[in-house]
Amino acid sequence: MSETQRVAPMAEREMKARAEVLDGKDELAAKRRDFILDTAPDHAADAAGVYLDGNSLGALPANVEARVVDVITREWGQLRIRSWDESGWWTAPERIGDRLAPLLGAAPGQVVVADSTSVNIFKALVAAVRIVQEDGDTERDEIVVDSTTFPTDGYIASSAARLTGCRLIPVAPADVPGVLGPRTAAVLLNHADYRSGRLHDLPGLTAAVHAVGALVVWDLCHTAGALPIGLDEHGVDLAVGCTYKYLNGGPGSPAYLYVRKEHQPRFDSPLPGWNSHVEPFGMRADYEPADDAVRGRVGTPDILSLLAFDAALDVWEGVSTAAVRAKSLALTDFFLECVAAYVPEGRVESITPVAHAERGSQIALRCPDAAAVMKLLIERGVVGDYRAPDVLRFGFTPLYVSFADAERAARVLADTLAEAPGGP
Amino acid sequence: MSETQRVAPMAEREMKARAEVLDGKDELAAKRRDFILDTAPDHAADAAGVYLDGNSLGALPANVEARVVDVITREWGQLRIRSWDESGWWTAPERIGDRLAPLLGAAPGQVVVADSTSVNIFKALVAAVRIVQEDGDTERDEIVVDSTTFPTDGYIASSAARLTGCRLIPVAPADVPGVLGPRTAAVLLNHADYRSGRLHDLPGLTAAVHAVGALVVWDLCHTAGALPIGLDEHGVDLAVGCTYKYLNGGPGSPAYLYVRKEHQPRFDSPLPGWNSHVEPFGMRADYEPADDAVRGRVGTPDILSLLAFDAALDVWEGVSTAAVRAKSLALTDFFLECVAAYVPEGRVESITPVAHAERGSQIALRCPDAAAVMKLLIERGVVGDYRAPDVLRFGFTPLYVSFADAERAARVLADTLAEAPGGP
Repeated sequence: MSETQRVAPMAEREMKARAEVLDGKDELAAKRRDFILDTAPDHAADAAGVYLDGNSLGALPANVEARVVDVITREWGQLRIRSWDESGWWTAPERIGDRLAPLLGAAPGQVVVADSTSVNIFKALVAAVRIVQEDGDTERDEIVVDSTTFPTDGYIASSAARLTGCRLIPVAPADVPGVLGPRTAAVLLNHADYRSGRLHDLPGLTAAVHAVGALVVWDLCHTAGALPIGLDEHGVDLAVGCTYKYLNGGPGSPAYLYVRKEHQPRFDSPLPGWNSHVEPFGMRADYEPADDAVRGRVGTPDILSLLAFDAALDVWEGVSTAAVRAKSLALTDFFLECVAAYVPEGRVESITPVAHAERGSQIALRCPDAAAVMKLLIERGVVGDYRAPDVLRFGFTPLYVSFADAERAARVLADTLAEAPGGP
Repeated sequence: MSETQRVAPMAEREMKARAEVLDGKDELAAKRRDFILDTAPDHAADAAGVYLDGNSLGALPANVEARVVDVITREWGQLRIRSWDESGWWTAPERIGDRLAPLLGAAPGQVVVADSTSVNIFKALVAAVRIVQEDGDTERDEIVVDSTTFPTDGYIASSAARLTGCRLIPVAPADVPGVLGPRTAAVLLNHADYRSGRLHDLPGLTAAVHAVGALVVWDLCHTAGALPIGLDEHGVDLAVGCTYKYLNGGPGSPAYLYVRKEHQPRFDSPLPGWNSHVEPFGMRADYEPADDAVRGRVGTPDILSLLAFDAALDVWEGVSTAAVRAKSLALTDFFLECVAAYVPEGRVESITPVAHAERGSQIALRCPDAAAVMKLLIERGVVGDYRAPDVLRFGFTPLYVSFADAERAARVLADTLAEAPGGP
């Protein structure tokens, strides 16, 4: 399907010229070449497609294929069982956790890469409740969870509450401080809202939770790799997140668990699998946890996916999260400007905060025919995604999205909105 | 290191001749070509190596590399987010579960491939206790676990007991029937002992558990792919297992969870992640589980590892588990005969039962210097493994181990035992 031209030519010329200037000054521009992006899938417009769904599944880093082929053919195919030791498979969860740590603002020794985000939320929340209650605070029996968060967080928090005898208190993020108190054991918060892209105040909310003597668990799925997190600096207790969005680890790549150094000796996992044992190959009947972050592991690590993520981390070489954040904000600002210039007022409404301090790395636009609009956009090579009932999501991954991409996406969006059923 | 020749030439001629006859009659012999086996790693003797550690990590099926490369380069690299739908990623856990099901003796719709064995044990045990207690049997508050089992089963059972308010009763398998009673809620058993290779009586123990009104969870790590299981036929309630041993799924490939059809409506997961929701993309705040085996899922499936396992399942085309079992027993019988013929009496002691009904697909030999012996064996290309304190383990994967392999392994073992520090 060819692109139509419904936007005003003068506006288009101006925005394209600005995109060119911005791309010219972009210190991360060269990173795009580390990704496989400009291939042509099976529909016409894609050869010059714009991928704005890296907040759901990051694009493929160019070096992953060769690394995984080596893992399969040499490490598994030839060395076989010896690779658990000789290829470093056994220690991969903590080794790769240490490689990831700088992107989370964490010193080494606090992150393991393993399991899914949901499973890690369960470990973190149950362990948080246990740490608090071990302090003699057995009257702390409330788990607070953001009621607007990604659903799995709420489901898992509900299970953690049920199994630890706690009461679950779901509230909107703005109301969290108001429900904290002497009965609060743990609080689970998402750093960015998966629908609106709103960024929550990690330092402030962490401090508020600590002020009442409770522990906080942050879900970083929608921020890690897109902005500086500062886990150590802000005193975060526990954190989890996936690796397949802005971290480009591949579909369903293993998630991670951060356990702050000072909490590790009391991290009492509800999933004490043999990988978390101080002496896993001792095959001892009695359970004795490892004395560091390794106690966050459970079962045998998923090597193929884990080492694909390891390779994906190479693209961060020489990249500062501050530079990533600066570009992310510039990209989303510019995209919103293009949308304002190209799309008739009132056709879409941005539900992403304008203030930088409240914005993650995605823009969410609301319109009544969002499902149909996204379908058309994808056919035209502009790939975002749809979240029920009426949200168009566009994720901006600073390592590979250009300002020219942002301009083009807004332009194709304007054309599409003009033609779509809900249009004027 | 070259092979020495310490075994009696006549015995060697006889056993080699018998191996040739047995290999000639082997209906599974051609399957060996579906695996990458005869490559030469970085030590001398390996070019003609014998891989007897498939009970720990199965060898690489030849078609896995191409499949994973396609998943990376086309499905992830080009289609990206669209693959969740168009490449069938989203439904892979249950689709591949259905492919695996015949090897477990299960009808479709009861198996999902996801998470690690440890995580699945947790789901299965907590769910089993809940099913029993939902029947009004709240006085059933005991979880029985095989005290000789692979340690992770005991550790996780202990956590499940703690979180459900049950008492954990660890007993040797032979004593299980003696501790079953009106307070038994659930029983976790391993189908084969990971050290001795002893096969436990799945039909008999399942019936004994049912006779007292409890539910049983079987861990099939050491039997699936090596012998017929018959989950449906024997009325097993829940089962778990890994896919990287006799199922050749690759290092740390996802495990599986079987939930018997009749229990699915009451399977109340302690890990109710969004993947188990009846409408996962509805993003609903209220949790409503899917009405089938899908409620055993938790978080986003690990696609690279999962689809590597999918490819690995291709080798089972046209293979009956009865044929696999027949060859497995013939191989282990023959290996024991070769050991008896080659190794001086008393140098090693087999702790694997002689009776076929009590034998899995591995042979465990005890000798005081087992650690040193296994190290030498591996240097000589005969790869088994060592389990503390004194066990040599040799796994026999019927799809790719030949009788000639068994003979050679026994011969190199005899030479090695003669030279090793604990030798005569």
